[in-house]
Amino acid sequence: FSGISSFAHLKPVKCLIEPDEHYDIAVIGAPFDTAVSYRPGARFGPRAIRAASARWLAGTSYNTRAGINPYQSWATVKDCGDIPITPFDNGLAERQMYEAFLELGRRPAVTSADSKYGVKGISAGKPKLVTLGGDHSVALPALRALYQIYQKPITVLHFDAHLDTWNPVRYSSYWTSEQAHFNHGSFFHKASREGLISNTTSAHAGLRTRLTGVDDGDYTNPGPEQDFIRIHADDIDELGPAGIIRTILARTGLDPDQPVYLSVDIDVLDPSTAPGTGTPEPGGWTTREFIRILRGLEKLNIVGADIVEVSPSYDNKGETTALAAAQVAFEIITSMVK
Amino acid sequence: FSGISSFAHLKPVKCLIEPDEHYDIAVIGAPFDTAVSYRPGARFGPRAIRAASARWLAGTSYNTRAGINPYQSWATVKDCGDIPITPFDNGLAERQMYEAFLELGRRPAVTSADSKYGVKGISAGKPKLVTLGGDHSVALPALRALYQIYQKPITVLHFDAHLDTWNPVRYSSYWTSEQAHFNHGSFFHKASREGLISNTTSAHAGLRTRLTGVDDGDYTNPGPEQDFIRIHADDIDELGPAGIIRTILARTGLDPDQPVYLSVDIDVLDPSTAPGTGTPEPGGWTTREFIRILRGLEKLNIVGADIVEVSPSYDNKGETTALAAAQVAFEIITSMVK
Amino acid sequence: FSGISSFAHLKPVKCLIEPDEHYDIAVIGAPFDTAVSYRPGARFGPRAIRAASARWLAGTSYNTRAGINPYQSWATVKDCGDIPITPFDNGLAERQMYEAFLELGRRPAVTSADSKYGVKGISAGKPKLVTLGGDHSVALPALRALYQIYQKPITVLHFDAHLDTWNPVRYSSYWTSEQAHFNHGSFFHKASREGLISNTTSAHAGLRTRLTGVDDGDYTNPGPEQDFIRIHADDIDELGPAGIIRTILARTGLDPDQPVYLSVDIDVLDPSTAPGTGTPEPGGWTTREFIRILRGLEKLNIVGADIVEVSPSYDNKGETTALAAAQVAFEIITSMVK
Amino acid sequence: FSGISSFAHLKPVKCLIEPDEHYDIAVIGAPFDTAVSYRPGARFGPRAIRAASARWLAGTSYNTRAGINPYQSWATVKDCGDIPITPFDNGLAERQMYEAFLELGRRPAVTSADSKYGVKGISAGKPKLVTLGGDHSVALPALRALYQIYQKPITVLHFDAHLDTWNPVRYSSYWTSEQAHFNHGSFFHKASREGLISNTTSAHAGLRTRLTGVDDGDYTNPGPEQDFIRIHADDIDELGPAGIIRTILARTGLDPDQPVYLSVDIDVLDPSTAPGTGTPEPGGWTTREFIRILRGLEKLNIVGADIVEVSPSYDNKGETTALAAAQVAFEIITSMVK
Amino acid sequence: FSGISSFAHLKPVKCLIEPDEHYDIAVIGAPFDTAVSYRPGARFGPRAIRAASARWLAGTSYNTRAGINPYQSWATVKDCGDIPITPFDNGLAERQMYEAFLELGRRPAVTSADSKYGVKGISAGKPKLVTLGGDHSVALPALRALYQIYQKPITVLHFDAHLDTWNPVRYSSYWTSEQAHFNHGSFFHKASREGLISNTTSAHAGLRTRLTGVDDGDYTNPGPEQDFIRIHADDIDELGPAGIIRTILARTGLDPDQPVYLSVDIDVLDPSTAPGTGTPEPGGWTTREFIRILRGLEKLNIVGADIVEVSPSYDNKGETTALAAAQVAFEIITSMVK
Amino acid sequence: FSGISSFAHLKPVKCLIEPDEHYDIAVIGAPFDTAVSYRPGARFGPRAIRAASARWLAGTSYNTRAGINPYQSWATVKDCGDIPITPFDNGLAERQMYEAFLELGRRPAVTSADSKYGVKGISAGKPKLVTLGGDHSVALPALRALYQIYQKPITVLHFDAHLDTWNPVRYSSYWTSEQAHFNHGSFFHKASREGLISNTTSAHAGLRTRLTGVDDGDYTNPGPEQDFIRIHADDIDELGPAGIIRTILARTGLDPDQPVYLSVDIDVLDPSTAPGTGTPEPGGWTTREFIRILRGLEKLNIVGADIVEVSPSYDNKGETTALAAAQVAFEIITSMVK
Ligand SMILES: [Mn+2]
Ligand SMILES: [Mn+2]
Ligand SMILES: [Mn+2]
Ligand SMILES: [Mn+2]
Ligand SMILES: [Mn+2]
Ligand SMILES: [Mn+2]
Ligand SMILES: [Mn+2]
Ligand SMILES: [Mn+2]
Ligand SMILES: [Mn+2]
Ligand SMILES: [Mn+2]
Ligand SMILES: [Mn+2]
Ligand SMILES: [Mn+2]
Repeated sequence: FSGISSFAHLKPVKCLIEPDEHYDIAVIGAPFDTAVSYRPGARFGPRAIRAASARWLAGTSYNTRAGINPYQSWATVKDCGDIPITPFDNGLAERQMYEAFLELGRRPAVTSADSKYGVKGISAGKPKLVTLGGDHSVALPALRALYQIYQKPITVLHFDAHLDTWNPVRYSSYWTSEQAHFNHGSFFHKASREGLISNTTSAHAGLRTRLTGVDDGDYTNPGPEQDFIRIHADDIDELGPAGIIRTILARTGLDPDQPVYLSVDIDVLDPSTAPGTGTPEPGGWTTREFIRILRGLEKLNIVGADIVEVSPSYDNKGETTALAAAQVAFEIITSMVK
Repeated sequence: FSGISSFAHLKPVKCLIEPDEHYDIAVIGAPFDTAVSYRPGARFGPRAIRAASARWLAGTSYNTRAGINPYQSWATVKDCGDIPITPFDNGLAERQMYEAFLELGRRPAVTSADSKYGVKGISAGKPKLVTLGGDHSVALPALRALYQIYQKPITVLHFDAHLDTWNPVRYSSYWTSEQAHFNHGSFFHKASREGLISNTTSAHAGLRTRLTGVDDGDYTNPGPEQDFIRIHADDIDELGPAGIIRTILARTGLDPDQPVYLSVDIDVLDPSTAPGTGTPEPGGWTTREFIRILRGLEKLNIVGADIVEVSPSYDNKGETTALAAAQVAFEIITSMVK
Repeated sequence: FSGISSFAHLKPVKCLIEPDEHYDIAVIGAPFDTAVSYRPGARFGPRAIRAASARWLAGTSYNTRAGINPYQSWATVKDCGDIPITPFDNGLAERQMYEAFLELGRRPAVTSADSKYGVKGISAGKPKLVTLGGDHSVALPALRALYQIYQKPITVLHFDAHLDTWNPVRYSSYWTSEQAHFNHGSFFHKASREGLISNTTSAHAGLRTRLTGVDDGDYTNPGPEQDFIRIHADDIDELGPAGIIRTILARTGLDPDQPVYLSVDIDVLDPSTAPGTGTPEPGGWTTREFIRILRGLEKLNIVGADIVEVSPSYDNKGETTALAAAQVAFEIITSMVK
Repeated sequence: FSGISSFAHLKPVKCLIEPDEHYDIAVIGAPFDTAVSYRPGARFGPRAIRAASARWLAGTSYNTRAGINPYQSWATVKDCGDIPITPFDNGLAERQMYEAFLELGRRPAVTSADSKYGVKGISAGKPKLVTLGGDHSVALPALRALYQIYQKPITVLHFDAHLDTWNPVRYSSYWTSEQAHFNHGSFFHKASREGLISNTTSAHAGLRTRLTGVDDGDYTNPGPEQDFIRIHADDIDELGPAGIIRTILARTGLDPDQPVYLSVDIDVLDPSTAPGTGTPEPGGWTTREFIRILRGLEKLNIVGADIVEVSPSYDNKGETTALAAAQVAFEIITSMVK
Repeated sequence: FSGISSFAHLKPVKCLIEPDEHYDIAVIGAPFDTAVSYRPGARFGPRAIRAASARWLAGTSYNTRAGINPYQSWATVKDCGDIPITPFDNGLAERQMYEAFLELGRRPAVTSADSKYGVKGISAGKPKLVTLGGDHSVALPALRALYQIYQKPITVLHFDAHLDTWNPVRYSSYWTSEQAHFNHGSFFHKASREGLISNTTSAHAGLRTRLTGVDDGDYTNPGPEQDFIRIHADDIDELGPAGIIRTILARTGLDPDQPVYLSVDIDVLDPSTAPGTGTPEPGGWTTREFIRILRGLEKLNIVGADIVEVSPSYDNKGETTALAAAQVAFEIITSMVK
Repeated sequence: FSGISSFAHLKPVKCLIEPDEHYDIAVIGAPFDTAVSYRPGARFGPRAIRAASARWLAGTSYNTRAGINPYQSWATVKDCGDIPITPFDNGLAERQMYEAFLELGRRPAVTSADSKYGVKGISAGKPKLVTLGGDHSVALPALRALYQIYQKPITVLHFDAHLDTWNPVRYSSYWTSEQAHFNHGSFFHKASREGLISNTTSAHAGLRTRLTGVDDGDYTNPGPEQDFIRIHADDIDELGPAGIIRTILARTGLDPDQPVYLSVDIDVLDPSTAPGTGTPEPGGWTTREFIRILRGLEKLNIVGADIVEVSPSYDNKGETTALAAAQVAFEIITSMVK
C-alpha cells in the first residue's frame, strides 16, 4: 500500500518522452474507453490494475506454477506509464495509440538478439509490449504497429466472451459513420480486412455471446475475419483446460518465427470474478481454469498482449476484477520471460 | 442503455388493462416481497432484471447453444409489465396475483392451436407466462391459475437451495396465523395440499439447505409435498450437468400433454454469482453449469415459469445477480420457443 | 417499484417515431457521455433519473412549495423516451441530438397559443423540452435547435461548478482535432461563437472550479462567451438563496419574449448529495438551497432545460444523486407549468 | 468493535421473557418493515443502529452539549433486545408489537416515583421506551400502549419529511383491504381516529413531501389528524434551529403532566446524510441542525420515542444513516435523563 | 434479523469474566488485525461472521451432508463473546489472546471424559475452541495455549492461499524488530521454531501464493517449518475433492490421541466468493469444493480451529465472504460434534 | 485518469533515497494506521488522496478564492512519495516517521532565505511538509521533527471532531502498555508532555466528541495538553466561518516567527461528505464552510501540515472523502505559497 503505483512496483518511466529508455518488456497503459457499446469506464482500467498489483514486489514474485520469477530473470521489465489519448475523437485516439505502440515497439530491447539469454527467432532483440486497457479496440492500433514492425500478418489468440469480428455495418446501430466503424466489437473485422491478422492460425476462445440475426451467419459469413477457430466457454466442460490448450496450440503452432498477439478481454472470465467490465456474460471461465490455460501457452512467441475491458466503477469493493486482470498480466509476462 | 426498459427491449404493453393484447409468451413482473423470511427487496427484482437485459435486442439474440433466435422465430413475445400488488396485505396480494395470472394465461395465444408452428399437445394455442419475481411465494398463485387453466395437477421442476415445501406450522416462528402460512418457504406445501401439483413427477434440484429438527424429517414426513425427488447441489460433482438432466427427465417425463411449471429461485446459483438474494447459501451451482442444465430441458412442455428472489439492493455494483436472472429468463424463453 | 419506468410514471411514448404525438412539455433522455473529460457513465443518467422518479405518480405530485400539481394542471406532460445516439462518433452524435431536439421542439404544443391556459409571449403554443442527460455537451445541439426555433439568441441560465466556456484550444490536452472541440467543457464557448447565446443576459451560478493558467484569464479573456455574469458557490453565504435569485433575475430579466434555457449540471450540488457525477467539486450547494433558488425563478420563460452529468455508477447505494436530479426536473417542470 | 452488539454496550437483556427485569429507560428493537410503500429493509434497522453505536461505552458518553453522561446519571438504561414480530401478517405483527410495548411500558421503573432523582409529574415511576425501528408504522402500537398506560391522549412530536396522516383510502393504491390501512403512511390517521393523539398539541416538523391531488387538501381536509401544526423543512432557513424549537414548544407546552411521544423518521434528515431509508426526499435538515433542535427540547416530558425507517441495505459503506440514527437515540436518551 | 447477534443465536456468555461457564465447544471472537501486511479490517470479522449466521437457529440446523444437527446433539455449544485485545501493541495483544485461549481451553467440558457421549481419546473431557478471527496471527497464541494444554506438539491442518511459514527476516520489509516478527505471514514459522507444531504430520492446503526470491527456497529451505506437505489449489483439478481429502488424511492420520488444529484462512477460497479479505489470490477453491473437503475430514480429532482473515469492509453488499466463513464454522462445529 | 498517480500530477520523486532532491513544499505519504481505536484502513489514505487529485494539473490549478496558482508561483512543489513504515510495531513505526520527517524537513529549500520570493521570518529557506495520512498519530513524529528543526514549541491548529489530547491511561481500554500510549487519541497529550507544543497559542476546532466520565474533566483536568482553546462544531452556527477565523487568529497570532502546525483530521467534516474515516461523528462542518475557514488562515506561518484519517474502504463509490481531503491539501498548499 506504499509507494507510487506502478505495475508491481516496477520502475516507472515515461518511455514515450524518454527516447533512451529501453526494456525487454514494457507495461503500458491505454486509458481509452470511448469505443464501447455499453458500460464505459475502462479508461480507469490501467489505474485499477496497477493498484491491484500493489501488493507485489519484484523480490516476492516467484511464480510457482512456472518455476521462475519473471522480474529477476534475464528480462528488463518496466512500467512505461500511459499513452496520452484524447477521449473526444476516436479517429485521433486511434492514431495516438498507433504512434505510441510503434514508437515503443521499435526500440531495441535491452537484451540483444545475440545474447545467450532472451527470445530466439523473429522476435530476438525486439521488446514486447503488454498493454493494460482500455477498451478492446486498443488492439487495432497495436496490430497495426506490430504489422509494421514484423512486416507480416500476426497470429491472434483472442480470449473473450464475444466475437469482436462483427461487421461494423451490422454491429453499430442507428446512423452509421466511418468513424463509428472503429469500436470494441468490430476491430478484428477491420484488422482482418486490412490484412494485419493471420486468420488461418488465429483463434477465439471463451465465446458465449449471442449472435445477430436468426442463424449463425456471424460465424459463417464469407470474409477473412471469420477464419478464426472458435472455442466456446462451454467446451471446457468436455475438454478440460488441457484440451483447450491442445486445441489452441494445434491452431497456432509453436513456430518461433510466427509472432502471436495475445488479447485478453477480461469478460472471458465469469462475472462472478469479473463483474467490473462493460458487457459481462454469465457462464465464463473461472480464474483457476484460465490461469491454467495461460500457463499451458508459455511456448508461444507472444510479441504483444493486452488485458482489456476492466471497468473499475463496476468492480466490487474487493476489486476482484482488477486483481484477476493483474494476475493475467503477471502470467503473460511470465510466459514472455520463460 | 437507451430506451424504456422493457425486458430485452420487447414491445411493452400493459396487458392487464388492454384485453385485446395477445402473445405466445408473456413476460410479466410480480413486484412482491412481503412473504420473505429474511432479507426483503425482491419487489425491485423485475426492474433489476429488465435493466440487466437492456443490452439485448431482438435482432442480436441468436442463442448459439440452442441454434435459434427466440424473438425472431414463430412466437410473439411481449413484456406485459407488472401486476399491481399491495405490499400491505399478503392475503390480498395473493388474490391480485392469482387474478392476473388467470387473466393473462387464459387469453388465446397469437399462434393458434392449428398453426403449423408453435406448441403441440395440451398447450397448443395457449400462451405461456414467464414471471419475473418477486419472492418465491408468487409461485402459489401461478400454480392456482395454471390448475384452473389446465384442469389437472401441474408437474413442478423446482431449482432452489431450499425445499420450500415446509409445513408452515414448523416454518414460521413466533405466533402464527392463517395468513402467515402464505410465505416463501411453505407455498409448495400449500400447493400440494390443494392438489395443484403432480408431486410424483416433480423434482427439487440444487438443494443445500439445512433442515429443521434433528433428523431428515423434513424429507420423509408423510404428505404429498414430500414426494418431489431431491437433487442436491453436490450431486453435480458425481453426475455432471448431463447426469442432472437425465435424473430430471427420468422424473418428469417428456409427455407433451403434461404441463410443467419451471420455478427458478436464483439462490440455486452460488452466492459468488448471485449475492443479491434473500437467503443465500454457499455451495451452489455456477451459471455455466446451470445454463447447461437448462439447455438440456428444452423438450419439456413448460407452460409457465418464474425467476424469483432477486433482491437488487444486495446485488453487487456489476449486477451479476440480475444478469444471471436475465440470462435464465432468456434460456427459458428459448426453450419455450424451440 | 411497479410498472415500466418512465419519468414519474408519465405516459411513455416514442415521440421521435410517432410524429403525431403532441405535448406541452416533453421529457427526453439523451444517453450520451463520450464528450466527458474524466469519469464517464452519464449515458446511464436518463435511466437512473427515471428510476429515481419511480415513487411519484401524477396523482401524488402536488408541489407544496409552488402550490400546484404540474401534472394535473393545464399542461400535457409526456416522457418521450431516449434519442438514439451513437457512442462512437461525437460529430455524428451531435447531429443526431440536434435533429431530435429540432423535430421535437418544432411540433405544435397540445395547448394552442390562443388558449386561455398555458404560456404567453414568444413561447405560446410551443412545446418545451426537458432533457435528461447525458453529459453537458448535449446543451450545444439543444441551443442550436432552440436558435432555429426562436430565431434569436437564447438567454442561458447555467448552474454548474464549472465554467464550460473554456476555449477548446486551451481545454483539451494533447493533440487536438476539430471534433475534440465538441466536449463537455467547451460547448458554451462554441455556442457563443456561433451566436446562439444572448451572453449579455446569461449567467453562471454555483461556480467553484479552478481555472487554467496563473491568473483569472479564463474570466476576462475577450470573447462573447465570457460575458455571462458569474455567481460563485460561496456567494450564497453572503447573499442567501434570496440574494442569488435577485442577482439572477437582475441579469436575465423576466421578459416573456426572451426565451431562457436552464442548464443544470448536477455537480452544482455538493458531492455529499451528488457524488454520482463526472467531475465533482467540494463546496457546492445543498439541495435545500438549490430547490429554493429554483422555486424563485418560476417566472422566467424557460423554453428548454437540461439536467446533466448524472453518472450512476459513481452514485451511492441510496441513489442520492439521481434523486436530486429527479427533484430538479420536477421543480423545473413545475416552473414551466406555473 | 468488540463484544456482543447491544446499543452502546448497554447491558443486554431479553426483557420480554424476563419479567423481573426493570429499567428506567429501555431500548427496544422493532425489526418490522412490511408496512412500507417503497424500499423495504428497515427490519435490519435495529441491528444497524446497534452496530453503529458500538464505538460508545457508558464510560465515554459524556454529552458536552447537554452537560451530562446519560448512562452514569440516575437512570438505569438497558437494551431489551428485539420484539419477535412476524414478517408475514401485518395484523398479527401489530398485535405483537402492541403487547410488547404494553408489557414493557407497564413495569415499574427502577427509580420509584418518590425518589429524589428521576422524572416528576405523570411519568414519575414509569419507565420510558426508546424504539429502534423498523418502519414508521411501529408508532401505532406504541401509541396504543401509551394510551393504555397513561389513560389520556398523547402529544406527538413528529419529525419526518412526510405527513404520515394520510387517509388510507387515498394513500394505498390498487385494491384496498382493512389490513392495508395499517401502513407507514397512514398510522397517525388511524391513531387520531382512535383518539390516541392529542392533536391540538401535536406537531409535524421537517415536512417536504408532495401531497395528493391538485390542492393542499391533505392539509386542510376535516378530521382530527389534520390538527397537527406543520413545520416545513424550509422553515429553518427563516427561523433557524432556535426558531424551530420555539415553534414546537409553543405548540406542545412543557406541562410535566402531558406525556409526549417523540417520533423520528430518519428521512427528516437530508439524503446526503441519511440515504439508507425507504422514501428519501431531497432538501432535509443536516445532522448539526437536527441535533441542535433535539437539544432544545430536553424539557419535554418524553414518555416514549422511536427512531424509524433506517434501511441499511441502502446506506452507504460508511454507515452514515445508522450513525445518525444512533446519535439521535443518544440525544433522546440524554433528554429523558436530564 | 431479530435478536442480539451471537453466532447462530447460540447462548451468548462472557466466558472470560464468568469462570463458572462450561461448554463442550466455545465459539470465541478474536477482533485483532494489526499484524496484517496489506488490507486491514479483520477486527470486524467476528461481528460480520456472527451477523452472517443470524439466519440460523439451533432448531433449524440439521446438516444434511453430515446427518446431524450439531446444536441438538450431545454437545453444549456457546458463544463466548470476544477476547479483549489491544489494537496498539502486538506484543501485548498476543499475550492477551494467549491468556484467553489458555483460560478457556483449560476449563472442564460439560460432557465429562467418562460420558458415553462426546469425544474419546486425548481430548475426552476437554472443551474445543472455534476462533472467529481476526487476522491469521491469532493462530500463534492458540497453538501456544494448546501446547500447554496437551503438552505435545499439535498437528496443523492449514487451509490458505499462502504459506504463513515465512521467515520473518525475509518477510517483513524495511527496518525490522523483534515485535515485527509476530505477523500474519510468519506465525507458523515462529510456532515451529518454538516446537508447538508436529510438522511431520501437518499440511498446507489450497496454496497458490508467489514465493520470495528466484527459486522455491521458501519451500525447501532447511527448518522444521518447511516440513508441512503442500497441497496446491490447482491440485484439485487432478485429484478432485476426494483426492485432496485422501492426501490430507494420509498425512495427518486419524489417531484420536493426536490433537489437530484446523486453521482456515478465508483466502483459501476464490476471490469470487471471498473478496472480503486482506490478501486475495485469484484461482482458489469454490465453497462447494471446500465444504466437501471439510466434510471428508470429520474423523480428525480437531481440538481447536480458527476461521480468519475476514475483512468486512472489502466484502460485497451481499456479504458472501462472511456467509462463507459462517458456513465453514458450521461445518467445523459439525465435525467436532460428530 | 492518465499517468502515474502522484498528487496533482506533481513531479514524483523518492526524496528519502535521493538526498539531492530539494523543494519548497513536499507532499509526503504516511501510510500508517495501526494506532487507530476503531475502523482501520487509513494506510490506504495517501493512495486514495492522490487518486482523487488525478483530475488536477499544475496548469489548471488557479485557485480563484485565493487568486494564485500555487504550482506556478515561486514555490517548487514535489510529491516525495511515501515513508516506509512497518505495520507490525508502532514503536518502530513512530521512529521511521520521525527520521523521515526530520530528514525531509532539514534539507534546504529550493528558494533560499535571501530570495525576494518565498517565506520570511523563522521559516525562510526551510521547506514545508504536507503529510497525507495515515492515522492521526502521525502528528507526533511530525511535531518531534519540527521541534528539532525549529528548536521551540510549535503552535498547533487542530481541526478535528475529537480532542486527541486524552490521557492514554484513560483512553486505551484493557491492559495497557507503554507502546499503547502512542495512539490516535492521545498523541497530543504525549506531545504536550514532551514540551513540543506551544499550548497557550494552540487551538482545537470542530469538536463534537463525547468525553470520558460524568463531567467535563477531559477539558479541565490540569495538564498542559488542556490549554488549547476549544472551538466546537456548533459554534459556527453563531459565529459563522468569519467568526471561527477570528477566534483562531486571536489565539494563534500571526507572528512570522512562530511556527504553526496545521493538523486536519478529516472527521472534522460531517459524515455526509466524509464517511470514509475511522471514527465519524454526525454534526460536522460542510466542505464549503471548511474551505472558507482555511482560506481565512492563509497569513499563518504554516510550517507543516497533515490531512489524516482518510480510510478509503469506508468511502463511498464517488470518493467524496478523498476528494475533500485532496481539496484541503490544495488549500493548504495555496496558503503556504501565498
Ligand atoms: Mn468481450
Ligand atoms: Mn472484446
Ligand atoms: Mn431459496
Ligand atoms: Mn425458494
Ligand atoms: Mn460541471
Ligand atoms: Mn458542466
Ligand atoms: Mn418519512
Ligand atoms: Mn414516516
Ligand atoms: Mn492467506
Ligand atoms: Mn493466512
Ligand atoms: Mn477525529
Ligand atoms: Mn484525530
